[in-house]
Amino acid sequence: MNSCRYVSKAAPKTQVEFDYDGPSMKTSVPGTRSQELTKQLGDIQNVGAINFFCNYDESRGNYLVDVDGNRMLDIYTQISSIPIGYNHPALLKLMSNPNNLSTLVNRPALGILPPENFPNKLTESLLSVAPSGMGRVQTMACGSCSNENAYKAMFIWYRNKERDVPGCPELSILSFMGAFHGRTMGCLATTHSKAIHKLDVPSFDWPIAPFPKLQYPLEEFSRENAQEEARCLEEVEDLIVKWRQKGKPVAGIVIEPIQAEGGDNHASPDFFRSLRNIACKHGCAFHVDEVQTGGGNTGKFWAHEHWGMDDPADIVSFSKKLLTGGYYHKDELQPYRIFNTWMGDPSKNLLLAEVLNVIRKENLLEEVTRSGKALINGLYELQAQYPGILSRARGQGTFCAIDICDDATRSSILLKARDKGVLLGGCGDRSIRFRPALVFKDYHVHIFLNIFNEVLAQHK
Amino acid sequence: MNSCRYVSKAAPKTQVEFDYDGPSMKTSVPGTRSQELTKQLGDIQNVGAINFFCNYDESRGNYLVDVDGNRMLDIYTQISSIPIGYNHPALLKLMSNPNNLSTLVNRPALGILPPENFPNKLTESLLSVAPSGMGRVQTMACGSCSNENAYKAMFIWYRNKERDVPGCPELSILSFMGAFHGRTMGCLATTHSKAIHKLDVPSFDWPIAPFPKLQYPLEEFSRENAQEEARCLEEVEDLIVKWRQKGKPVAGIVIEPIQAEGGDNHASPDFFRSLRNIACKHGCAFHVDEVQTGGGNTGKFWAHEHWGMDDPADIVSFSKKLLTGGYYHKDELQPYRIFNTWMGDPSKNLLLAEVLNVIRKENLLEEVTRSGKALINGLYELQAQYPGILSRARGQGTFCAIDICDDATRSSILLKARDKGVLLGGCGDRSIRFRPALVFKDYHVHIFLNIFNEVLAQHK
Repeated sequence: MNSCRYVSKAAPKTQVEFDYDGPSMKTSVPGTRSQELTKQLGDIQNVGAINFFCNYDESRGNYLVDVDGNRMLDIYTQISSIPIGYNHPALLKLMSNPNNLSTLVNRPALGILPPENFPNKLTESLLSVAPSGMGRVQTMACGSCSNENAYKAMFIWYRNKERDVPGCPELSILSFMGAFHGRTMGCLATTHSKAIHKLDVPSFDWPIAPFPKLQYPLEEFSRENAQEEARCLEEVEDLIVKWRQKGKPVAGIVIEPIQAEGGDNHASPDFFRSLRNIACKHGCAFHVDEVQTGGGNTGKFWAHEHWGMDDPADIVSFSKKLLTGGYYHKDELQPYRIFNTWMGDPSKNLLLAEVLNVIRKENLLEEVTRSGKALINGLYELQAQYPGILSRARGQGTFCAIDICDDATRSSILLKARDKGVLLGGCGDRSIRFRPALVFKDYHVHIFLNIFNEVLAQHK
Repeated sequence: MNSCRYVSKAAPKTQVEFDYDGPSMKTSVPGTRSQELTKQLGDIQNVGAINFFCNYDESRGNYLVDVDGNRMLDIYTQISSIPIGYNHPALLKLMSNPNNLSTLVNRPALGILPPENFPNKLTESLLSVAPSGMGRVQTMACGSCSNENAYKAMFIWYRNKERDVPGCPELSILSFMGAFHGRTMGCLATTHSKAIHKLDVPSFDWPIAPFPKLQYPLEEFSRENAQEEARCLEEVEDLIVKWRQKGKPVAGIVIEPIQAEGGDNHASPDFFRSLRNIACKHGCAFHVDEVQTGGGNTGKFWAHEHWGMDDPADIVSFSKKLLTGGYYHKDELQPYRIFNTWMGDPSKNLLLAEVLNVIRKENLLEEVTRSGKALINGLYELQAQYPGILSRARGQGTFCAIDICDDATRSSILLKARDKGVLLGGCGDRSIRFRPALVFKDYHVHIFLNIFNEVLAQHK
């Protein structure tokens, strides 16, 4: 029986304390209670995207428990935004500490009246993981606001540089086909992962470059992939020149280290290094959007660390697993005139500081590298076994994806896996993305592979 | 001596438990510790707007305590975003309840995997104060995101209505001179309170109508003010027609019930009723931005309640005192395709539900009406006494403002008041705005008036 080939190793006792030992399904999902609640919520707001309702009290570690008592291995983690699993004891302890109460009930306007511990908390949390060459950081409430304000910082920086140039041209941001940078109006002008996101909403005339379409496994197609990347880089330079001539010079280039919503599209470190050089050459700021890739899933805290550069970017934005939005920036990109009421939320900085402690104490980046290897190797084996269904297994750390033959099969596989206790998400036209928490270990990989194998066997 | 005319009544014992009995100043502000911390934070981010650093643990009720031990009566409340004062015992109790821990440490992706209590918490909190005619609500992380997504909802609604019309015109949002709706790029296209906000950032070609410039006191200038409002309404209709002809039809009109950042500019209920009718007549959605006016400061929970309409708006957005961002909307404005990772934060809904309980239990809207009367009457007296410095005292509830002869005098008065223990904020070119918490009582008004009088006497 194929379905037993990935033997589920027992979890060490210490891990189990805040985790479960496997999925446990009582109903198909959504169960009756979730359906009732969806109906109830439907009277209040649009529920078109609701999957099911959750019992967060009972959820633990890698397992999300729903309101019908189903316990699922969560490899999607709230769209990749739960860093160290559900109800981690360190976070429960932190939030039970009476010393932190006033941070929870008095949200300050951080830009004008920060709390006494704010510089220390920033140093302890965000600065302790600052990207190379970046000692400055601005917090924001969410990913979209982070990118919106990063774009503004680039516009202001660019205009200051050119202040002597007569006239007042409109500026633009260069983005890539397949990119996702958020859905507020500035961000949306650079988001191209799905046409439906943009329908009906006014936008800006900004240049959009092709993102390399690589062939996998990367090692086998290095020549073809290098050519494809060169083609895209050439197009980037052409667009920069063209938009300058149009009177809408490119103030900044924004790119994800791995296009996540757009289908887990990768490019090589060489590509990013060359792109960084093109940005410098043309006087454009280089903005790396790490909202989905940041926080450790790729095996490094920032995905751009895989490029091996001392000066990887001018701006790096984040949110999701960092629990607060925000962006790092070079000294020259002072966010002068970047302001709003809250400018982030210190209670999220508290949580982040503790998450980073846990990542260090539990060596979670090493764990991610280890379980990522088990995951990608398992996916390679499965795609060899089910070539009619699976292709293009790819990833870095546990930030992995695999393509399914078509969208209908993908939907069916996602639902069947869920009913067997594994929660996954899609991305792009026909990919499944893997976004476990950083506490996703080898033995979780094997639980997943066993169940995924069962699902695929039924489809064969 | 003028400085003693407003006798400070003693606070009732029960109130004092979570409040102090008056300001207490040890240094000028910012003191040395604040200056040190500002320097420290300056190595991490732009500190151009920092006033001073706060000790939120020691702050209570209407009093904000800084890191140098100064205790100030806070009539600015973190840019109007602290609803029931600092460290309200009901909120401390709520956040100490172990049953709420999992809400604090497991932030869900609300659009896909809400917690079991989400429909109930929404019903208990936001729906219990829903504007007339609006049973649907969408939460968001902050005020800018709320407005950005409200605009998108209006665009999508408008386009759906017109789906049969051939061609695909660009759409626009009509806003008003002096308006403030946020600083992300969509919002910024409708923000006109200060030119510096918009400098260097690309924008949209959307129509901007004049907001009435009324003369105060309103009762004495009713004929002039009615003429001014009629002029503005006429211009609104002209702009709607003009932009339709330009091929950029107005999908929605956005307006604040009181232009807050722009200088506390008021308009009459008649003006808003007529504007609402114009929106209906031309098929534009009507969006009332209550980010600053909402939450009770005007003596009603929503400022638009003063218009006395059953159907005041199609969309009402909020943030600040509501502790979560979001917007209410009519059924027709289904926020289909409105989505992001977090879609708000259930821990803020928890806090809001308790804030609303306190508002009801402590009859805070009645208190606001009472202390608002004391405040505006005190301002009228002071402006009669200092006609060379003060003019145009105006307000609703405690949402009041007064004009200062010039910007330099305003700055000087704000700093002197702060050094005497009263924290105020400016708005517009030369106004001071009053934005106390809802627990600001008669006796706080008198403490303020005494100190303000002292400051003015020195300027006379």
